[in-house]
Amino acid sequence: MEIQKIDLMQKDMPRKWYNIQADLPKPLDPPLGLDGKPVSPDALGAIFPRALIEQEVSTERWIDIPEEVLDVYARWRPTPVFRAIHLEKYLKTPAKIYYKYEGASPAGSHKPNTAIAQVYYNKKEGVNRLTTETGAGQWGSALSLAGALFGVQVRVYMVKSSYNMKPARRQLMATWGAECIASPSSQTEFGRKILADDPSNPGSLGIAISEAVEEAANRKDTNYALGSVLNHVLLHQTIIGLEAKQQLAMIDTYPDVVIGCVGGGSNFGGIAFPFLHDVIREGKKVKVIAVEPKACPTLTKGIYTYDYGDTAGMTPIMKMHTLGHTFMPPTIHAGGLRYHGMAPLVSAVLDQGLIEARAYYQKEVFEAGVLFARVEGLVPAPESTHAIKAAIDEAVRAREEATPRVILFNLSGHGFFDLNSYQLYFDGAMEDYEYPGEAIEEALHHLPLQNKA
Amino acid sequence: MEIQKIDLMQKDMPRKWYNIQADLPKPLDPPLGLDGKPVSPDALGAIFPRALIEQEVSTERWIDIPEEVLDVYARWRPTPVFRAIHLEKYLKTPAKIYYKYEGASPAGSHKPNTAIAQVYYNKKEGVNRLTTETGAGQWGSALSLAGALFGVQVRVYMVKSSYNMKPARRQLMATWGAECIASPSSQTEFGRKILADDPSNPGSLGIAISEAVEEAANRKDTNYALGSVLNHVLLHQTIIGLEAKQQLAMIDTYPDVVIGCVGGGSNFGGIAFPFLHDVIREGKKVKVIAVEPKACPTLTKGIYTYDYGDTAGMTPIMKMHTLGHTFMPPTIHAGGLRYHGMAPLVSAVLDQGLIEARAYYQKEVFEAGVLFARVEGLVPAPESTHAIKAAIDEAVRAREEATPRVILFNLSGHGFFDLNSYQLYFDGAMEDYEYPGEAIEEALHHLPLQNKA
Repeated sequence: MEIQKIDLMQKDMPRKWYNIQADLPKPLDPPLGLDGKPVSPDALGAIFPRALIEQEVSTERWIDIPEEVLDVYARWRPTPVFRAIHLEKYLKTPAKIYYKYEGASPAGSHKPNTAIAQVYYNKKEGVNRLTTETGAGQWGSALSLAGALFGVQVRVYMVKSSYNMKPARRQLMATWGAECIASPSSQTEFGRKILADDPSNPGSLGIAISEAVEEAANRKDTNYALGSVLNHVLLHQTIIGLEAKQQLAMIDTYPDVVIGCVGGGSNFGGIAFPFLHDVIREGKKVKVIAVEPKACPTLTKGIYTYDYGDTAGMTPIMKMHTLGHTFMPPTIHAGGLRYHGMAPLVSAVLDQGLIEARAYYQKEVFEAGVLFARVEGLVPAPESTHAIKAAIDEAVRAREEATPRVILFNLSGHGFFDLNSYQLYFDGAMEDYEYPGEAIEEALHHLPLQNKA
Repeated sequence: MEIQKIDLMQKDMPRKWYNIQADLPKPLDPPLGLDGKPVSPDALGAIFPRALIEQEVSTERWIDIPEEVLDVYARWRPTPVFRAIHLEKYLKTPAKIYYKYEGASPAGSHKPNTAIAQVYYNKKEGVNRLTTETGAGQWGSALSLAGALFGVQVRVYMVKSSYNMKPARRQLMATWGAECIASPSSQTEFGRKILADDPSNPGSLGIAISEAVEEAANRKDTNYALGSVLNHVLLHQTIIGLEAKQQLAMIDTYPDVVIGCVGGGSNFGGIAFPFLHDVIREGKKVKVIAVEPKACPTLTKGIYTYDYGDTAGMTPIMKMHTLGHTFMPPTIHAGGLRYHGMAPLVSAVLDQGLIEARAYYQKEVFEAGVLFARVEGLVPAPESTHAIKAAIDEAVRAREEATPRVILFNLSGHGFFDLNSYQLYFDGAMEDYEYPGEAIEEALHHLPLQNKA
């Protein structure tokens, strides 16, 4: 029997998050107000706790994980690293393929890594109610879980297309005691405006963010929590890569290729940044690949400029790869990747040549997901199938080049809530969306600061 | 941070299953034909491979797990043991509560432990097609998974009430390439007969077994696989308890109480038998509790006699606790516990005073499941909530008696496919079923060998 599962003992779990802001060759451009001047961190105090605002701008390399957060992580962490030995055999590749399995969390994805931290800091600063948005439901579930564990009330604005496709996700949030609302909704001014223009609007992450931010900004007792994009969110996710590095070290292995899918960028940052640490500081050679859908090709087709994080334009503007904040991505099944923008940190490492990006069609990633399920057993979330597809392509390239290599990817979540999407794939009822070039072109006309960018 | 997750390293995974038949104070009564004479193992050759028939009657204490089976177990095993430290705090109990988490398997329950072994032995003996039944869908999913991994075709007869309640379960089986049919169906003579009498019959495990056995008996290319009840099934599940024992030993702990839910008896046998080994052979004192629903109270209200394993009366008759093979359990949400009979091995250890049994109502186990989800994070399957409820009651007793104790239970599966049941619970739309005494009374009139029992 060959070892296929590498468990890190809980006592060896990382005690600090890694902050890549300490090591970026070129520092991040700051978020700006509409006047083109940097937003003071204090301005974010209306919707975020001070500790998270500090993490957002910190350039300290290692940030302590609070004992109370470790104590909750310990409910399921460390997550396992698996070797996909059966996929290797199927592909007849000389590559070794490893994956970190974040689907082992109670919410079924990597999202609780930051949800737990965010709810902890809010609670500590006296905030007992949070709003948020969710696409496929992974983030909303995670924040609902964290809310239950810390006794914080959670309201989730869920992108309507996913809300309708995934009733189990709503029921999961209810099981953890949270409230889940289809977005666009009549609960907010922005939601009502969208519905007035287009009652059948399927929603998007950008719209849901606007609704959640609007409510939090208007209610003193309520803060807002974001599941991706921001620096502090990616910081919390670095426990993924830190653990994975320790696990591979246990078998004297180091990856040549590191892969994650990207929507807002948090699971990718989580797996990738601890390896970029070694690239930047120790000159390690690692090929790091961010994988996105062709229907929402932020890194491969977007432009690197200042834009809003949400659709309504309520957030500060951030320097990032963007398709334009008014771009409405096609309703692909990987709902968590339907975002017009990208984490500024991920955008920066792409801009600075530390990573590469690629995009796939929907059907080819489902094909990869089904292959993975049938040879490895685990059914992946549609988002994660993007990483699988890239890992397969890298393994095939290794075969063609007859050169062994070690590939690590993040299996960010399981697909138990996405089985109707698999069924559509089997029924031949799944569409591929071509590059939505015209819609992006149009959206890019609505960038803020157009003359200054 | 207190250690909450105890991972066994894969290299230390058990290499042998434990066969409690070697140690039973009083040996099992053999299965009988209708003539009242023991069935020869060869008679089972029409639907089972020889290796499994041998395991069924073996009294060897330790049985090697084939390398090929270990190799598939290694995709997710060993599963973690968690300490439910937050539940302990909530209950203010001096007890320590541990649980083995079998929901970590790709199919989400303990069922793959035997599915993998059964498919392996069938494949090895040249059988490339299997039929089976499933209740809640846990077993059908597990056999579908195993079929995908070994390249064996699988057809699943799924109890119709569950089939309708759980579309995601069907889609999961499809993702692994299996065929899933609602039972009673028009595919078999027995199914057609049931439908003729009652077109809206919701089905039962007993009926689905009859359909699957009928098809396997009539097709030369097809064998049958059973997800519980039989000795070889419980044998394969002992890896649960064997691992758990090693994990508790890693922290110098041994349980005073061991708990599992029971439907057919396989997850219970899996967690309990390795500890009963110590009770029988080393005189250890362990309170071992089998937990069942009041709506289907096989161990607490059934009688210990010979009965059929299925509804149609196609199987040999086995000595077991039974409510009568024609008993149709109410459609509780714990579909996997809706079985009229019980594994002969579990019946025997109850009869021989080695374990105790208790029964709970549906709403009180869901209440326990929701509490568990909100304090510990993991959402349990409705079946597993029975074990949680018993663990909570034991922990409360420890508090009342002011006596610490170590409680271990098996969390046999996650509840991601059962969230509509949770929603009904929250909506106040869940019913409790009283002890179905009259229906059982009636069914007990239809026992075989009535004059001889």
